[in-house]
Amino acid sequence: MNLKVVTGNPNKVKEVAAYFGEFVVVEHVKLDLPEYRGDDVGEIARGKAKVAYEAVGEPLIVDDTGFYIRALNGFPGAYAAFVLDTIGMEGVLKLMESKPERSAYFETAIAYADEKGIFIFKGRVEGEIMTSPRGKEGFGYDPVFSVGGKTLAEIPLTEKSAISHRGRALEEFKKWFVENRL
Amino acid sequence: MNLKVVTGNPNKVKEVAAYFGEFVVVEHVKLDLPEYRGDDVGEIARGKAKVAYEAVGEPLIVDDTGFYIRALNGFPGAYAAFVLDTIGMEGVLKLMESKPERSAYFETAIAYADEKGIFIFKGRVEGEIMTSPRGKEGFGYDPVFSVGGKTLAEIPLTEKSAISHRGRALEEFKKWFVENRL
Repeated sequence: MNLKVVTGNPNKVKEVAAYFGEFVVVEHVKLDLPEYRGDDVGEIARGKAKVAYEAVGEPLIVDDTGFYIRALNGFPGAYAAFVLDTIGMEGVLKLMESKPERSAYFETAIAYADEKGIFIFKGRVEGEIMTSPRGKEGFGYDPVFSVGGKTLAEIPLTEKSAISHRGRALEEFKKWFVENRL
Repeated sequence: MNLKVVTGNPNKVKEVAAYFGEFVVVEHVKLDLPEYRGDDVGEIARGKAKVAYEAVGEPLIVDDTGFYIRALNGFPGAYAAFVLDTIGMEGVLKLMESKPERSAYFETAIAYADEKGIFIFKGRVEGEIMTSPRGKEGFGYDPVFSVGGKTLAEIPLTEKSAISHRGRALEEFKKWFVENRL
């Protein structure tokens, strides 16, 4: 069985390959996909999967991740990457100054597409926004997002996938895929 | 000649109708259009126009507006509405605290679609971010955006279209439309 991972990020492909082991051949496909604006990462991933499947025509997955801070009404949400590129983590911490409610979550949606349709799998991790960055692992918001007392940037990548939004979405997808497509 | 304005906002239709006077019949069409993520309002408007023309099949316009603050690397950009809904004007002012460079601009792109293709018209207005809101007119970022000493919220709507991003984009479009399609 062959599964294509449509992404610009080769690390994502390695993560998927590690999940499936040897019984699924995971392949990297780079495609310039239009990204829909919207609040729901599931709908964004679905939109991308539709376009990708029209182009590729073979079983594939795409994903989309959002970061939601409750005290900021869900900001930066599905625009987490854009916000990091513009105001940065520093800007996000500034917005959180003197906010007592600090809960937030990451959510990843994986969209799998094949000739039978598009299927969505979600994973979420709840945590809290720190007042300053901590740790050197990971990327993006990891240093300011704490889960059970440690930031995601303080957790080695190998342990991170066990608790992360992406890892959980991949786990859901794998369970379904093994039962329904292998 | 009939021109359809695809938008959820009836005020935009009135503005277009006022621009064209009686020689063009301007009609309101409400459609749920997917919105692409991207930095360029022209490309976003083009994407919406493509989908809208596939659905409607008659000459139409759609538009998209962004708000770009240079000291924030172009934030909130094409996500101005989402940012207003989440962190609000208050959040944007907080991010601008103690920033000496306060220049910003609004940009509107109008996409016109007919059987010959999609055509883009842009309008831009340069100004500065205030330290606190001023004025009661307009909406969105108008009270914190100053052009020549007055915020857009201190300028009556009738005068605003003469200098506004939307007004300028409409003016460009009208010039072209009158020359090429009437």
